[in-house]
Amino acid sequence: MPSKDDCLARLERLFAELPGLGPRSASRLVTQMLSEQRELAIELLHTLSEAIDTVQHCECCHTLTTQSLCPVCANPQRDHSTICVVEMPADVDAIEASVAYRGTYFVLMGRVNPLAEVGPEQLGIQRLLDRLATGEVHEVVMATSFTPEGETTAHFVATLIKRKYPAIRVTRLSRGLPAGVEVEYTDPASVAAAIIDRKVQ
Amino acid sequence: MPSKDDCLARLERLFAELPGLGPRSASRLVTQMLSEQRELAIELLHTLSEAIDTVQHCECCHTLTTQSLCPVCANPQRDHSTICVVEMPADVDAIEASVAYRGTYFVLMGRVNPLAEVGPEQLGIQRLLDRLATGEVHEVVMATSFTPEGETTAHFVATLIKRKYPAIRVTRLSRGLPAGVEVEYTDPASVAAAIIDRKVQ
Repeated sequence: MPSKDDCLARLERLFAELPGLGPRSASRLVTQMLSEQRELAIELLHTLSEAIDTVQHCECCHTLTTQSLCPVCANPQRDHSTICVVEMPADVDAIEASVAYRGTYFVLMGRVNPLAEVGPEQLGIQRLLDRLATGEVHEVVMATSFTPEGETTAHFVATLIKRKYPAIRVTRLSRGLPAGVEVEYTDPASVAAAIIDRKVQ
Repeated sequence: MPSKDDCLARLERLFAELPGLGPRSASRLVTQMLSEQRELAIELLHTLSEAIDTVQHCECCHTLTTQSLCPVCANPQRDHSTICVVEMPADVDAIEASVAYRGTYFVLMGRVNPLAEVGPEQLGIQRLLDRLATGEVHEVVMATSFTPEGETTAHFVATLIKRKYPAIRVTRLSRGLPAGVEVEYTDPASVAAAIIDRKVQ
């Protein structure tokens, strides 16, 4: 005879399937939501319901949004001649937080991963190429991560663009020392990049 | 002008308030739920809604359940003369997983914490005392953690019971070496407890 109600057990199992959560953290979270944080749980229920009903992919940049165009794509004050290609919506947040970019985005919602059979088609790159076909875009910034998968993705996408639209400038984020970290404590690959890509002062 | 829809931002903020989640993990989780794991999100929505509508505290042991009595309290095959006092529902799961206990529980849904003004009254200990008043209970096992708060809780509750019902046996979980860990790698407090509480072999 089970010692737990089916509804609670199902809720814990569902939460445990989300990224970053395991059986223990899911169980703690469910207990908290149904005891001390019940008001939060109700608000979360309504907001999740609203999100499931309204959130879709932006027609232009493919990020998640409640409108047909996301706030960045719909903003006429952004520089629509520059597109920054990122892996996930969280990367858009990170770049927006840097306050160093005024262009638009294209969110791949993933990265090229041959082992998981994720190629350029699965990442909807055709939609990016269609945007470039309008002739309005002058630069594409490849802002995928400096991981093997991110590098492969940047290489794939950049090659496709350069072959089809040789006039468009394709750039890549610079590599080097992260801010606020002493050279002594920086990983060897970043130090190597900082030396190789050193700039005239 | 914000770069993110209000609905998405709200959902991320709500998830970030749950235990074990922060702004970054909440953002990753929301992105995943609304892209690749949409079916899971819908199932989670329905199950959470069902849980909010039906889950309450067990009338007898105070744990979370969809019925007036939880499956353990409602099971006539359990030994109702023994009550194990635990802090949280997850502790019930851990003790059930040990398959070493056949009695019932009382779940405090917290621990005594004078700094947060959580005393025995906030933990609903009166409900436990009411159960003991029936005269059917012969033993109460204090199964709170071996942390300062858990120890304080065990001491508080045990003192209350012994003062009111001196005939009831009040016991405490044993302390000692955890299973599968070499003595060399066991923390000093557990080694000390294992020596002090050593048993004749």
